[in-house]
Amino acid sequence: ALGREADEDVSNKIMNAIDSKSIEDILRILSKKPHIAGRQGDFDLVKYVQTLFRDHGLEVKTTPYDVLLSYPNDQVANSVRILDASGEIVYDSVTNESDISHLEGVVPPFNAYAPARKVEGQLVYVNFGRVEDYDWLRTNGIDVTGHIVLAKLGRIFRGDIVDIAAENGAIGVVTFTDPADYAGGTYGDYRVAPEAWWMPPDGVQRGTIFTGFSDPLTPDYPANNLAYRYPEDKVEPPLPKIPCQPVSYGAAYELLRRMSGGIAPQTWQGGLDLKYRLGPGFTDSSLKLELNVTNKNERAKVENVFGIIRGDIEPDRYVLVGNHRDAWIYGAIDPSSGTAVMLEMARVMGDMVRKGIWRPRRSIVFCSWGAEEYGLIGSAEWVEQYGAALRERAVGYLNIDIALRGNDTLRVGATPLMNNIVYEASKRVRNPNPAEIAAGRLTVYDTWQHVTVGTGQGEPWIGGLGSGSDYAPLLQRAGITAIDCSYIYNYKKYRLSSYPLYHTEYETFDIVKNQYDTNFEFHAALSRFMGEMARNLADSLILPFNLSGYSEGLKVIKTKLDSSTYGTLLKSRLDNYEKLDDVIAGFAADISDFQKRLEKVDKKNPYRVREMNDQILLLEKAFLIPEGLPTRPSKKHILFAENSNDAYAESTFPGLIDLLFKIDSAPDSVDRWEQVKQHFSAILHTIQTAGATLRDVTSFMAEEL
Amino acid sequence: ALGREADEDVSNKIMNAIDSKSIEDILRILSKKPHIAGRQGDFDLVKYVQTLFRDHGLEVKTTPYDVLLSYPNDQVANSVRILDASGEIVYDSVTNESDISHLEGVVPPFNAYAPARKVEGQLVYVNFGRVEDYDWLRTNGIDVTGHIVLAKLGRIFRGDIVDIAAENGAIGVVTFTDPADYAGGTYGDYRVAPEAWWMPPDGVQRGTIFTGFSDPLTPDYPANNLAYRYPEDKVEPPLPKIPCQPVSYGAAYELLRRMSGGIAPQTWQGGLDLKYRLGPGFTDSSLKLELNVTNKNERAKVENVFGIIRGDIEPDRYVLVGNHRDAWIYGAIDPSSGTAVMLEMARVMGDMVRKGIWRPRRSIVFCSWGAEEYGLIGSAEWVEQYGAALRERAVGYLNIDIALRGNDTLRVGATPLMNNIVYEASKRVRNPNPAEIAAGRLTVYDTWQHVTVGTGQGEPWIGGLGSGSDYAPLLQRAGITAIDCSYIYNYKKYRLSSYPLYHTEYETFDIVKNQYDTNFEFHAALSRFMGEMARNLADSLILPFNLSGYSEGLKVIKTKLDSSTYGTLLKSRLDNYEKLDDVIAGFAADISDFQKRLEKVDKKNPYRVREMNDQILLLEKAFLIPEGLPTRPSKKHILFAENSNDAYAESTFPGLIDLLFKIDSAPDSVDRWEQVKQHFSAILHTIQTAGATLRDVTSFMAEEL
Ligand SMILES: [Ca+2]
Ligand SMILES: [Ca+2]
Ligand SMILES: [Zn+2]
Ligand SMILES: [Zn+2]
Ligand SMILES: [Zn+2]
Ligand SMILES: [Zn+2]
Repeated sequence: ALGREADEDVSNKIMNAIDSKSIEDILRILSKKPHIAGRQGDFDLVKYVQTLFRDHGLEVKTTPYDVLLSYPNDQVANSVRILDASGEIVYDSVTNESDISHLEGVVPPFNAYAPARKVEGQLVYVNFGRVEDYDWLRTNGIDVTGHIVLAKLGRIFRGDIVDIAAENGAIGVVTFTDPADYAGGTYGDYRVAPEAWWMPPDGVQRGTIFTGFSDPLTPDYPANNLAYRYPEDKVEPPLPKIPCQPVSYGAAYELLRRMSGGIAPQTWQGGLDLKYRLGPGFTDSSLKLELNVTNKNERAKVENVFGIIRGDIEPDRYVLVGNHRDAWIYGAIDPSSGTAVMLEMARVMGDMVRKGIWRPRRSIVFCSWGAEEYGLIGSAEWVEQYGAALRERAVGYLNIDIALRGNDTLRVGATPLMNNIVYEASKRVRNPNPAEIAAGRLTVYDTWQHVTVGTGQGEPWIGGLGSGSDYAPLLQRAGITAIDCSYIYNYKKYRLSSYPLYHTEYETFDIVKNQYDTNFEFHAALSRFMGEMARNLADSLILPFNLSGYSEGLKVIKTKLDSSTYGTLLKSRLDNYEKLDDVIAGFAADISDFQKRLEKVDKKNPYRVREMNDQILLLEKAFLIPEGLPTRPSKKHILFAENSNDAYAESTFPGLIDLLFKIDSAPDSVDRWEQVKQHFSAILHTIQTAGATLRDVTSFMAEEL
Repeated sequence: ALGREADEDVSNKIMNAIDSKSIEDILRILSKKPHIAGRQGDFDLVKYVQTLFRDHGLEVKTTPYDVLLSYPNDQVANSVRILDASGEIVYDSVTNESDISHLEGVVPPFNAYAPARKVEGQLVYVNFGRVEDYDWLRTNGIDVTGHIVLAKLGRIFRGDIVDIAAENGAIGVVTFTDPADYAGGTYGDYRVAPEAWWMPPDGVQRGTIFTGFSDPLTPDYPANNLAYRYPEDKVEPPLPKIPCQPVSYGAAYELLRRMSGGIAPQTWQGGLDLKYRLGPGFTDSSLKLELNVTNKNERAKVENVFGIIRGDIEPDRYVLVGNHRDAWIYGAIDPSSGTAVMLEMARVMGDMVRKGIWRPRRSIVFCSWGAEEYGLIGSAEWVEQYGAALRERAVGYLNIDIALRGNDTLRVGATPLMNNIVYEASKRVRNPNPAEIAAGRLTVYDTWQHVTVGTGQGEPWIGGLGSGSDYAPLLQRAGITAIDCSYIYNYKKYRLSSYPLYHTEYETFDIVKNQYDTNFEFHAALSRFMGEMARNLADSLILPFNLSGYSEGLKVIKTKLDSSTYGTLLKSRLDNYEKLDDVIAGFAADISDFQKRLEKVDKKNPYRVREMNDQILLLEKAFLIPEGLPTRPSKKHILFAENSNDAYAESTFPGLIDLLFKIDSAPDSVDRWEQVKQHFSAILHTIQTAGATLRDVTSFMAEEL
């Protein structure tokens, strides 16, 4: 019994039991009221999730933290105003958006942790607020120092927009969601929510602008009653330094139509019906912009809720499945669509265990994270608290956040070890789209392959992992190999940075049902997909990771580096650059040797099985370096992190990329090159010794001088 | 068979097979020629050790490193001279000591890594060169700035003498071994080596003065062909900043008898037949001291040699037994006496496995470390190289360095987990001393108890672990629980900092045989003692660590802290000081719960056994913090490190002690108090979550706010 192989029939039982109607019911409950982190709506959902887990037989644990959150001031609203010379208000952007529900607890538009400060100045339009946008402005004689910048959301993480603005000398930031990026006109669809999935003129995207993750006051340690709390002005990474407020594109129109200065380049023009001008300032030079942010940082309680199915043979190995619970408002899309998908898995698996139909070999832990929206706080605090145990015992992490960004295809981001698990599961799940089935694409895999590859050749595209959701602390700090998944619009057709209603009050149950998934079959497909991956990880006698995928993945990112400008730079400056190929080849050889041993392993001997599984389990962890990346010590994974100029985007060899960014024009160029050489050696060493962890356990010391 | 309990009879078989004559033969070979690290004598011993391992059936691995060592210049000798006004030499200390052998490769007295520099100045006598000695001098109007200091060796690590002198403004250091500390007159024995074990007037103690460990050029990463090497002037911790040279007490007499200034306090007077004066300078004020150090730092190859006995059930769990191989000269005491003891264990165990008498459950790895004398280099580099695997698989580390500092009693330093293993083994080993047996003390334990406790009540004294030998990197960086052991003189009778001939050319085979252990029975007893501990760790079905010893140990060090001045200071300044008691109590409760579960565990189920053993195995590792101690980031263990003002001495809560040292008179006092609070929180968290790693594997999340 200890050596039992997984019962494949369980897979079908789980798939069949997952019920679209049940998901719909759960989502209706989850999204009924606003449930921002740290307020009653979220506390109510904590109870709901606990009860659901308990009702279906799962062991329930709740981990509370006392963290720093941020809310708008309910006395004085945030405002973005145009004032005349005498201080009279010429234009005042509305402080609420649709207020479609009139329920209590709808948080008005704001950016979490934007400092409370009133600033006045000239407005400068900075396109998407990226480093290259400021470079262009500088080249064209426009300096934003002392000005307030107006930036479009959508290309980089909004926290990075604020940091980059501050670095360039701006005193405040106003952001908006341009219709070119968030409304359907470009695609011939002029309808907006609630009649369509597009953003209406009054919709405003909320969001955090803190660029760290975890509670800002307690880096590296859990925010409990033992914690040391830094003063807010000593936090690392720092809290945002300049005020920032998001407005609707309706409001942005009122600002832009008054602006003076040259006409912005064609590529900077957006979807509003006017010529976007750069500024600084308004055509009526007596006018100025007043940005008044009145947010307050507040300590609040944040909880993670865990539903645990204890494994019967290896309870000390955890398959983690997670999703955040907190939403800016109703969160019917972000994250409650994902929560519903996860809770349905928990319901089905819990019931099967309760009824004695099945118990997984390893433990399955469902994680309902708190305060993700503020900076992955709940998951990060948990890793800070229990990292020592997790590092040893966590097998892998399956993340879901937004279940449906659209309904055209699966979208997966994953570490290389996960690829085959993802493909296999997606091949087993029936296509939720009747039109696709009619076209002969019977499985989720088929449509995914069709949309992302198209030719019928090759595996569907799997992306990397940035810091967009709770997988980041688990992967980057505890080395837990991870995936993130959702359904998405056809992103070859719709060039959107996110689904349009992202982080607005329009994210309601009705939008989900009417615009995305009337029968909840796409939700159910995702639940089956994740359930199948969880079952595979939890039940397989030998952990099913794609080891050669890791060496292949390394070769791919090395080839990408080679052909990039950074690769050219490294080649010309590092006399050991070619050693990277050597260690990757050595790593591939170690993997191939391991797989040969694995084929011959005595599966009847639990110690042999555990020995091999432990080696597999620890492989991802071997890529962590204790000191962290050179400029981001809390990121420990040498291969994967978010891009430091855009926390949503992933970056490979992130420590190198950080250091190489504009290195030759940097004042500390010489020092930085030394850091590059040093970190490059760390990468070589880490890849080499990651391979060593897979070698025969008494023959692992094979390195020569 | 997978659940077999240890066969206690193996214990007797090992003990009986260990042979004093064999140890004698091995030591004769090991100590025949000088074998300083990086030179031919050591390379020859690498081959010898490899061959011995191989001959007795062990798997052999060798890990080479390319590291920075330091040697005297063979063109221009180091010198300590008194010059007159015209530069003529009035006194010149000899550059060699006894030269008793006339063999090639005897390294003249020097301090490794002392920078090559010639300095001239006034001499100041600074007693043992401790912080408090300079405090006293300052209070008494003597400033060493610009002077050369003369310090007695023996109370603190010589590297710390040099660092403290440099911090106080000295431009050079001359050290000597005072007869009060190194010769027998105080004890009525006026004979010296080779007629006795005391230091003769021409003996000089060599030694490293680098205060870091591992190769200086490659901190944190292995010194192989992938390594980034810092330039020598950018190394952290830095290489010694001022020149230093050791002289004999014969030479020190020549310096001291010419010195002027006030008479040193009674407690500073040493064993030379004169009044020790403080200086600065000589009574003949035209004279000055010239210290000329001509050492060269050189890259050299250093190798660790491993002899591996593969465990039959859990080969991926390692019991490590180690000893360094390199010596300053013949090293018959330091370290070859220990090497002989270890090689005898390897011979006996290897033969038993070869003959099919026994194979341990877990792997036993004998480690012959290179370049320990220069700063624990071989062992530290190995931890840097293979730490990721060791952290998961190493069960414990048994260190021996000097086997016999004397022959009166056992001396053990250990982590709390090891206590019972140590006591049990020592009770099983027959007393090697016939006089003690005649007195009714039949075992090693009995004499140890008699010497250290005396009353017949209580367990023998076990010390802590500083950084005196190779256990330091394994414990402090990889969290491998450890012991260090030797035989020693009765240190209640002989108040010596080390055996007198330490690091001199007098450490020969003949001294060992004639002065310490004629029949090698003490060596054999140590070999049996270590062999028994290794067998116990390798063969016990459940790992035999003393878990409650850890919580008891924590209570003891907390009580010690309470009653210290630092404890008083902390109590008055930290409003959460009493939480330390709470988390220690919680830790004790976690241990007690674990032990109850352990009693009931199904020992027939390999997964249950492995689960519990993994929890035990990882306990020590849970005390590491990735960022390291606040002022010493390469030391990761929050409970144990060496004292930062004396690398030989251990320190508990070392991060706190570092920060609190003279905190209220420090210019950065306010910042430092914040660091104290922060590190104190890290300690609270670490103890609490170390307990959590022992909880039931699906019920470990028990913390409340
Ligand atoms: Ca924290
Ligand atoms: Ca190194
Ligand atoms: Zn989300
Ligand atoms: Zn979100
Ligand atoms: Zn030694
Ligand atoms: Zn030594």
